[in-house]
Amino acid sequence: MLRIPSSQNPLLRTLAGQTNAPPPIWLMRQAGRYLPEYREVRGRVSSFLDLCRTPELAAEVTLQPLRRFDLDAAIVFSDILIVPYALGQKVEFVEGEGPRLEPIGDGKALGGLNKGSAAKALAPVYETIERVTAKLPESVPLIGFCGAPWTVATYMVEGGGSKDQAAARLWAYREQANFQRLIDLLVETSADYLLGQVAAGASALQIFDSWAGSLPEDEFARWCIAPTRRLVTQVKAKAPNVPVIGFPRGSGPLAERYARETGIDAIGCDTSQPIEWIRDRLQSLVPVQGNLDPLLLVAGGPHLDRRVASILAALGSGPFIFNLGHGILPDTPIENVERLLRLVKTGAA
Amino acid sequence: MLRIPSSQNPLLRTLAGQTNAPPPIWLMRQAGRYLPEYREVRGRVSSFLDLCRTPELAAEVTLQPLRRFDLDAAIVFSDILIVPYALGQKVEFVEGEGPRLEPIGDGKALGGLNKGSAAKALAPVYETIERVTAKLPESVPLIGFCGAPWTVATYMVEGGGSKDQAAARLWAYREQANFQRLIDLLVETSADYLLGQVAAGASALQIFDSWAGSLPEDEFARWCIAPTRRLVTQVKAKAPNVPVIGFPRGSGPLAERYARETGIDAIGCDTSQPIEWIRDRLQSLVPVQGNLDPLLLVAGGPHLDRRVASILAALGSGPFIFNLGHGILPDTPIENVERLLRLVKTGAA
Repeated sequence: MLRIPSSQNPLLRTLAGQTNAPPPIWLMRQAGRYLPEYREVRGRVSSFLDLCRTPELAAEVTLQPLRRFDLDAAIVFSDILIVPYALGQKVEFVEGEGPRLEPIGDGKALGGLNKGSAAKALAPVYETIERVTAKLPESVPLIGFCGAPWTVATYMVEGGGSKDQAAARLWAYREQANFQRLIDLLVETSADYLLGQVAAGASALQIFDSWAGSLPEDEFARWCIAPTRRLVTQVKAKAPNVPVIGFPRGSGPLAERYARETGIDAIGCDTSQPIEWIRDRLQSLVPVQGNLDPLLLVAGGPHLDRRVASILAALGSGPFIFNLGHGILPDTPIENVERLLRLVKTGAA
Repeated sequence: MLRIPSSQNPLLRTLAGQTNAPPPIWLMRQAGRYLPEYREVRGRVSSFLDLCRTPELAAEVTLQPLRRFDLDAAIVFSDILIVPYALGQKVEFVEGEGPRLEPIGDGKALGGLNKGSAAKALAPVYETIERVTAKLPESVPLIGFCGAPWTVATYMVEGGGSKDQAAARLWAYREQANFQRLIDLLVETSADYLLGQVAAGASALQIFDSWAGSLPEDEFARWCIAPTRRLVTQVKAKAPNVPVIGFPRGSGPLAERYARETGIDAIGCDTSQPIEWIRDRLQSLVPVQGNLDPLLLVAGGPHLDRRVASILAALGSGPFIFNLGHGILPDTPIENVERLLRLVKTGAA
């Protein structure tokens, strides 16, 4: 099932628990608007979702950053909201405003979702992966991904992004059984989806829990940790050798519990987590990934150089994957990304 | 200078380091839209800022929650953006949208701010405090407050609230000296402002750093911890007996460093911080305040009862002030607040 023996790539070796110097590096949202060649391809389709659903173009933008930069992994170009779309929820991306969904706020709307139709709607992602892996250098792994059940559920209930995920959290407090049904559906669908990505050629997986930080501890255990553990267990039952990175963004001190209890192979860290704390509390449990401020990559200059050096100094002596603490921003100058790659790969700009 | 000997009130005793059973309780934004009597007064003025600037009405809404609920403190009705307004920045509150300011994005705009005019613009807040303390029962302290320099600066630079404070953070990366000038101005103005509130009758102070969570560690040290320490030092130089609560919302594990290094007397905790972690890492350093999810107070029911019980169990055996992890929400049913007060004061609903 595995395209690449893990010994041949620093990302996969790191995910297996080894320390690599220099550490492997990839960047969240590395295929995206900061690249002119991405904007050119994006201009060929009318909507963002069409780009995700057109394997030829999605494969092309997945490969673009690898042509420019010495990155240690590709990540399939898609969106976490492809899953609600596959379940039959109306999803659109409004230019400059972000995603809009027909919100689901009761058991009836929940009943309208249909897991049966999901496989067909997700097939273009699998084809994208097949196209990418056919063209990627053999030593470079492709990362597949999905949104965590909690984060995807917040979009489904809120009808889009929101400041504090209040609608989803309130529904979960008031109608716990219905919210649990939604989470269960997302666990099952996401497990199939991740396994489909592995079958198509993904060598590693990441679960994005972008809104994990809005949950108090008991709800974090119930809606973030438990569903993630079930999702990881289901994936590992059929793909035991494919490492899974969990990224519970904003979870602060709760990240430690997440690392202990979910069964993930590595944890993504956001910019608010101090690097010594990451080293002492998380890297002692699992390999860590992160956590450069994406705004520093926009700003560049000596601040960037110093921060990269401190991150490497704090985390480089254990299993570590260099990444941002959140996705790369559209305003990021390409020369700053080049500089970052030099800093990480050679220790000098 | 002090209106109340600290021994006479459980909030002040707790802030002095004592453990009180039951713990004192007040609620952030306890004077607000969830109260019909607040909405009635709000309807008498055309803007939110007018309400803050009309001492008779601001005093009335400050006192309203104390008439309904057995709270252990009042907090003066005002807004953290009164400081930029006092410095001459254009500030307005757009109904349903939040605050809008004329953004400050360069050294020139910065030069237009005028500390000289601030005292006059802040005078209505002092008069509000005098009116409130004249009517409050002698045993009930009034809390004065301000926004932390970092948080206020983000609004001044962004021109309003924002998802990740990117404009302010980017300006701070790119023009550190200018941003430092803005922070310095806010430290000086806020110190005068807090001391003015103490002179008018405030018995305790809170510094709201609502956007502390968007800062990576180095910037957290530079823009959150250092200015807060200077602000606290300046206040304590003239009002050594007035306790200061710091509330670095969203700071996660960095809250520990904040508690150690700022000189605050107590720390406010948000809902994302696990209660055992608060007990072990923060309450061992200073008294703690928090951290019930405001949405649970909207939802009510058995979840609320259980969470209140777990918070009391984890934190009640040390110096602890019961509060929310963020401001009370407009949809909060009054009976849920009554229930919360009974749960905290008597241990039963």
